[in-house]
Amino acid sequence: MTEVQKKALESLKSIDREVYLLSHIGAALGWDQETYMPEEAVDERSEQGALLSSLGHSRVASDGLAEALEALGAGDFLLTEQGWAQAENSLAPGLTETDRALIRHVYRAHKRATCLPDSLVRELSQTTSKAQTVWAKARKQDDFESFRPYLEKIIDLKRQEAEAVGYGDHPYDALLDTYEPGMKTAEVQQVFDALGAELVPLVQAIKDAPQVDDSFLEKHYPVAGQEAFGYEVLNAMGYDLTRGRMDVTAHPFTTTLGTKDVRITTRYAENFFKTGIFSIIHEGGHALYEQGFSPEIAGTSLADGTSLGIHESQSRTWENMIGRSRPFWDHFLPRLASRFPENLKDVSSEAFYRGINKVEPSLIRVEADEVTYSLHVMLRFNLETRLITGEIAVKDLPELWRQESRRLLGIEPAKDADGVLQDVHWSFGLFGYFPTYALGNIIGAQFFQVMEQQLPDLQNMISRGDFAPILQWLRDAIHQYGSAKTAGELIRRITGGGLDSRPFMEYLRTKYRDVYRLSL
Amino acid sequence: MTEVQKKALESLKSIDREVYLLSHIGAALGWDQETYMPEEAVDERSEQGALLSSLGHSRVASDGLAEALEALGAGDFLLTEQGWAQAENSLAPGLTETDRALIRHVYRAHKRATCLPDSLVRELSQTTSKAQTVWAKARKQDDFESFRPYLEKIIDLKRQEAEAVGYGDHPYDALLDTYEPGMKTAEVQQVFDALGAELVPLVQAIKDAPQVDDSFLEKHYPVAGQEAFGYEVLNAMGYDLTRGRMDVTAHPFTTTLGTKDVRITTRYAENFFKTGIFSIIHEGGHALYEQGFSPEIAGTSLADGTSLGIHESQSRTWENMIGRSRPFWDHFLPRLASRFPENLKDVSSEAFYRGINKVEPSLIRVEADEVTYSLHVMLRFNLETRLITGEIAVKDLPELWRQESRRLLGIEPAKDADGVLQDVHWSFGLFGYFPTYALGNIIGAQFFQVMEQQLPDLQNMISRGDFAPILQWLRDAIHQYGSAKTAGELIRRITGGGLDSRPFMEYLRTKYRDVYRLSL
Repeated sequence: MTEVQKKALESLKSIDREVYLLSHIGAALGWDQETYMPEEAVDERSEQGALLSSLGHSRVASDGLAEALEALGAGDFLLTEQGWAQAENSLAPGLTETDRALIRHVYRAHKRATCLPDSLVRELSQTTSKAQTVWAKARKQDDFESFRPYLEKIIDLKRQEAEAVGYGDHPYDALLDTYEPGMKTAEVQQVFDALGAELVPLVQAIKDAPQVDDSFLEKHYPVAGQEAFGYEVLNAMGYDLTRGRMDVTAHPFTTTLGTKDVRITTRYAENFFKTGIFSIIHEGGHALYEQGFSPEIAGTSLADGTSLGIHESQSRTWENMIGRSRPFWDHFLPRLASRFPENLKDVSSEAFYRGINKVEPSLIRVEADEVTYSLHVMLRFNLETRLITGEIAVKDLPELWRQESRRLLGIEPAKDADGVLQDVHWSFGLFGYFPTYALGNIIGAQFFQVMEQQLPDLQNMISRGDFAPILQWLRDAIHQYGSAKTAGELIRRITGGGLDSRPFMEYLRTKYRDVYRLSL
Repeated sequence: MTEVQKKALESLKSIDREVYLLSHIGAALGWDQETYMPEEAVDERSEQGALLSSLGHSRVASDGLAEALEALGAGDFLLTEQGWAQAENSLAPGLTETDRALIRHVYRAHKRATCLPDSLVRELSQTTSKAQTVWAKARKQDDFESFRPYLEKIIDLKRQEAEAVGYGDHPYDALLDTYEPGMKTAEVQQVFDALGAELVPLVQAIKDAPQVDDSFLEKHYPVAGQEAFGYEVLNAMGYDLTRGRMDVTAHPFTTTLGTKDVRITTRYAENFFKTGIFSIIHEGGHALYEQGFSPEIAGTSLADGTSLGIHESQSRTWENMIGRSRPFWDHFLPRLASRFPENLKDVSSEAFYRGINKVEPSLIRVEADEVTYSLHVMLRFNLETRLITGEIAVKDLPELWRQESRRLLGIEPAKDADGVLQDVHWSFGLFGYFPTYALGNIIGAQFFQVMEQQLPDLQNMISRGDFAPILQWLRDAIHQYGSAKTAGELIRRITGGGLDSRPFMEYLRTKYRDVYRLSL
């Protein structure tokens, strides 16, 4: 490495550090806004957030960073793994592996921050800002037509974004890449189709089977007891409360305010026990990922989830594969029952297990169980990809939504408010985001299968409440790397193959054959 | 105003807006640190705060701002009211009164941010950073000698700061000006001396009188009841909880996170009722000031307390002159007694009033009552001013402290930990800060006297719990202006004269003649 390159690397790291700090400061403001901020403060808080974003953006897009990247040999490449593989040959010699990963990561951010024309950024921001209000009203009034022109405009702008970012095979690649760096539309399509082909009959079989009883979940569970139990579970999982905390918000989330400050939130329903605890376990799974980055990448922008799909794989593994497993409740049910003896004294471990795993196709994605959830996602993915290519038109969306819903879930919404208008995402311009939810299920099951092979005592550990080996495995295989390895690299390293829906399907089939006594 | 000047004004306002937002973002981080932040997060939080400070500083010190000020005619002037009066003649024509105030305010900040050589700023920061740790240990071990070299160094650096800032008569002027813009050392000295001459015999007379009984304050007061009562009082005072909130911290404070986001904190002692409620009223007084800036200055750096003395005048007026008055408890005691009937059923309104106004000379400033408090401040002021001029040496401080303590309070500390080492301020380099506490008492009483003349029904209003006319008076006379008027201007406008300790002394004498049945 030349002296010039050494200086360039220092300069890159110093800009990266500032971006990192600014993003955590923004997270602190966001956390406060959702938890404790007085209601009237919202306008200035938006302005404060916008200032921080613009300060971060100006650094990521800066000429100084462009020059540093240039000096380090990070020439122009496509935002795909193949593109980077080509670019790697031109990088300065003598860089550590972590430095190479950082340069890739920063290059990506720089390219994303500079490739869109200002006019497009402005138009996107103005359109989505208006669209959010219009969508909220349209959903309330079940009036898709009022939202339609905004959605058409947004899709037109997202097409322009895809062209400006660039892509290999499919314009949707460029949008998906925002949340799943390096992932291709074709790959997702193939895996989703394979999964769908097996999920639909499984859901049908469950529908035809006698329903399980979960009425004990609807008894009265006071918040204080739920919260205390939540902390008991979080502690067992290994969530470090000297570097985190839990609060209550309208919508649960995990947010990172600093290297040693990863907070979660939950919400409680006193008459539906599942709401609180599974939010806590889910967010706890996200938080363990963020608490597990190695010291080597701490303090750099690599200390971040590598993709939304990988992030979601962690939350869903803890929530579903561990948190809704039989051994988990073999351990925790007696503890829970001692807090709520009235509600649970007559509920067997088996009945509890079956009750928390109740499956029921419903219209609303956010209320879906782990079996039907991915079908909601596929529905949206199938529509999104074809909207972007122009194969389908916005005006036909309500009817197409009903068709897809019938085909995948066997039910269809009576009104658009429960159909095409149900999610906020499109009004924000979030195209390419939905698939990551289902990718989380699929990737989580792939990783879990390998973990089970490598930790043969896994189920017994869970039934003893001994989660340390599990967390250690996740840290070693996934968490420590943060964004230093892409989702594709992690999947290859851990499984030896690519994205594959079979482990998830096998997990579901085995589990629900049992829960619903199916003869599949 | 020329086109160039119009543009300069726009540019100044835009920089000021960013500084304003950055300072509120910093306040949000600070609030979180004291309330809910996980313990391990402290290191990165410091770094985040430092980044925000440096971003703010770079804007205040920027060439862009210097050019805007120059174009607007804000030439070089002394940081005194006289200096500004001269400068005003050279300002661009056609500026509104608010714009002129903003330019003065921004000029001050710019000059303060640019007048110190970088080397001095760095040395001050490094020295005080180390000195804080050394001081904490020295106080713990009652070892002044270990702190002495650091204090000597800090005083040397503060002298250099005074020279770099510039001053009229006394080097301490330049330090005092940081917290009390435009205030002169000589003026404070004169007023303090006059006050001291009358306070010392009053304290002696109280010491010689039979002590009042306040044992009912030391019964058990559970936090929940104290908090609910605190909210009742805050609501009556007019503190707007849709634009604020109250939390618990180790040391109570008020902080502004946004134009519509002014928060307070308190602490509770379950076995000493006074701690919680008087902190709440005190901080509530600060918060009402910050909630009362006029829309005209909202969103600019003028929306800030004009000096620490004025700020303290607001908190002390509410805490002492209103909150420790007989009519206040005529109204609130029955309400308090209904929350704590066991503790208060046999306590008459008169006994309660006398109990909460107990006076007792003590060694520790932060525990002092409203009569002796100012004496603690004078002690420090007398030493600080002479340390800066070099009239006294650091090595003689412990003995000089004891002498002053004897002279003013009639008692002296047995150890330096309760004497010269008791306050954190000097280790931070905060010279010129202490006098503002006593100025708050003095100015508060001056304003209160005028308010009483203008609201003849004042005492009855208080006894009815009707604080709206009081808040309106404070808003009209003081709050609305924020920093658009200096402390000196406010005092002149409201009282027609200058700083004067007589109203405070008269208030104390009248009140404590009554509380202690004195024949003074």
